[in-house]
Amino acid sequence: MACLHVDTIDGRARRGVLTTPHGQVETPVFMPVGTAGSVKGLTPEQLHAAGVRMILGNTYHLMLRPTAEVVARLGGLHAMMGWAGPILTDSGGFQVFSLEHLRKIDDEAATFTSHVDGATHVLTPERATEIQLLLAPDVMMQLDECPPGDAPRRQVAVAVDRSARWARRCRNRWQEAHGIGSTGKPVALFGIQQGGVHADLRAESARRLVELDLPGYAVGGLSVGEGHEAMCDVLDGLDEQLPADKPRYLMGVGEPRDILAAVLRGVDMFDCVMPTRNGRNAQAFTWRGRLRLRNARFTEDARPIDEACTCYACRNFSRGAVRHLFMAKEMLGPILVSLHNLAFFAEFMAAVRQAISAGDLRATADRWIETMYAGAEGAETD
Amino acid sequence: MACLHVDTIDGRARRGVLTTPHGQVETPVFMPVGTAGSVKGLTPEQLHAAGVRMILGNTYHLMLRPTAEVVARLGGLHAMMGWAGPILTDSGGFQVFSLEHLRKIDDEAATFTSHVDGATHVLTPERATEIQLLLAPDVMMQLDECPPGDAPRRQVAVAVDRSARWARRCRNRWQEAHGIGSTGKPVALFGIQQGGVHADLRAESARRLVELDLPGYAVGGLSVGEGHEAMCDVLDGLDEQLPADKPRYLMGVGEPRDILAAVLRGVDMFDCVMPTRNGRNAQAFTWRGRLRLRNARFTEDARPIDEACTCYACRNFSRGAVRHLFMAKEMLGPILVSLHNLAFFAEFMAAVRQAISAGDLRATADRWIETMYAGAEGAETD
Repeated sequence: MACLHVDTIDGRARRGVLTTPHGQVETPVFMPVGTAGSVKGLTPEQLHAAGVRMILGNTYHLMLRPTAEVVARLGGLHAMMGWAGPILTDSGGFQVFSLEHLRKIDDEAATFTSHVDGATHVLTPERATEIQLLLAPDVMMQLDECPPGDAPRRQVAVAVDRSARWARRCRNRWQEAHGIGSTGKPVALFGIQQGGVHADLRAESARRLVELDLPGYAVGGLSVGEGHEAMCDVLDGLDEQLPADKPRYLMGVGEPRDILAAVLRGVDMFDCVMPTRNGRNAQAFTWRGRLRLRNARFTEDARPIDEACTCYACRNFSRGAVRHLFMAKEMLGPILVSLHNLAFFAEFMAAVRQAISAGDLRATADRWIETMYAGAEGAETD
Repeated sequence: MACLHVDTIDGRARRGVLTTPHGQVETPVFMPVGTAGSVKGLTPEQLHAAGVRMILGNTYHLMLRPTAEVVARLGGLHAMMGWAGPILTDSGGFQVFSLEHLRKIDDEAATFTSHVDGATHVLTPERATEIQLLLAPDVMMQLDECPPGDAPRRQVAVAVDRSARWARRCRNRWQEAHGIGSTGKPVALFGIQQGGVHADLRAESARRLVELDLPGYAVGGLSVGEGHEAMCDVLDGLDEQLPADKPRYLMGVGEPRDILAAVLRGVDMFDCVMPTRNGRNAQAFTWRGRLRLRNARFTEDARPIDEACTCYACRNFSRGAVRHLFMAKEMLGPILVSLHNLAFFAEFMAAVRQAISAGDLRATADRWIETMYAGAEGAETD
């Protein structure tokens, strides 16, 4: 199972260790996204060297190709990805609802067409559970309904109710399998809170999930356009709504400012495509803001991406070299900046954990935000 | 400089050590191609782990982008590429002659238009020398004229004469710079033999190069459609035509059968895009033939690409996983098979060197060719 041991509390921020069948990770933790069985362009060896300790796989992509059954026959997702550390899979719900291929949703299931071959798929809570047990990650997610960020309250309320009932059906199917995945190892099931920006719906959603006594709880339906303040308001309810001894995971959030706000409100886990997606687009994260490395001013810049960084890319390549690789459309450009960004996020989360231990995350976070979002370099280039 | 110490001779095959300002490499050696400042998709760290010890850079690509001057300002090609080992650069001639952009060639220069921005460039022997001294590899090549594989004898004779005169001009410009590149380290200049399949022209070409007493000699204008037997006939003259104490480099040849034939005829160095180009296209080299990993029969194949291989890809990924990565268009597929192929070529060359030491390369080579080109697996899939 995935058990959280909280070591230190600083306000509502928590530092701890998550124990899984594939080892321990320190929390708060950031998980890069390995959509289709790969964190794009990087080997597991490079990920580990960059400080990555836990990754996310997308059930939607894997169930369509190569299919969950093929993943199981290849020894499960860890074996297929060549990744020995913990993995979390989402339920596929978010992709189904956010892509163009949703055909129908009712209390029974979400029906959608595959972007790979156009075939129709019916995703019930039971099937989403079975698929993830075949994939055999360390943590799996319930199937939930994710309404759009601008959905009216009535639609959000329906989604809260449906997600709560789907959580129970996922839990039941998971219990029937004794929580054991295709590799024979336990898989922890996390519930997902919905409720948009409505405090009462968030509270109701949390209450109905906590009744199920799941191994962990996620916050879904944020970072969908509600804005930073509204996100903070929702997260302000979290510490009261969720049990203190279970991991809390804020789905799809990776903006450093949002991560800091969420950790300060008691969140332990994060995932986002930002470090790798922005990396493929030549945007590098640093403590002093972001660099757009295609900019001509970097042509002859012999300094590393970030002079304070000790990652492989910064130890071995200049900004000028990285810019050249992007201009020449060499794969190594996206690879190096993705690698640097993941190393930055790992270092950032390590610094967050240290600040929690030092008992001054709030003040430290304010200073970081100032240099990251208002620094001369960031302002100039972002 | 790049000095060859020959340790062992087996027939005409030579085993030795090439000493350069960036370290020693055992010969015969295979050099992967880093066209535009990168061996596509792979970090220098991955290259080294795969057994790569020396790489090739393409002057044609680098002179156009980011330009030789920018490479020099970024600290030279080693610093720009993040590669600490030896580098050889070609002269740009081969690309200029084989691409669509050649405008004019006369005794003075080759004039061509850039594929990057359409600008006109005039490549004289002196300029090709200056460019490479700016790039500052360990070994640079003279500018030569490479006639097409089906060129009439008269055209080949003109190319032999012109290449010999250009070799002298390169040598003169190189001597004026005291053979020192932009980083302050010596750069060895190699001449290039031309002459097509004509034994007398090959002999004349070699004689005129050897007069210049260059640090090394290359064989150009082969592997351009003349066929394996004709290549062997040309290489049969090599051991007599070239001094025994200088390195010999067969340009652009990478087919294992051709490498074996060339080593048996006294060649020390090779380069080819094949391991990386074929790797990007899902074709894996093994001792038992080639696998086309997009083939549906690999979908659920949990074995590594090559059960006898200890490379990173084979230690961590199944054929089924690699096939999936290619089907899902994940960059990691091309990366892993490129990595495997480079590891195979490194292992292949190490086995060649061992067979020379054992004094039985000829018999060993025959056995290898049988399993590589007629093996059940190769025949089935290639």
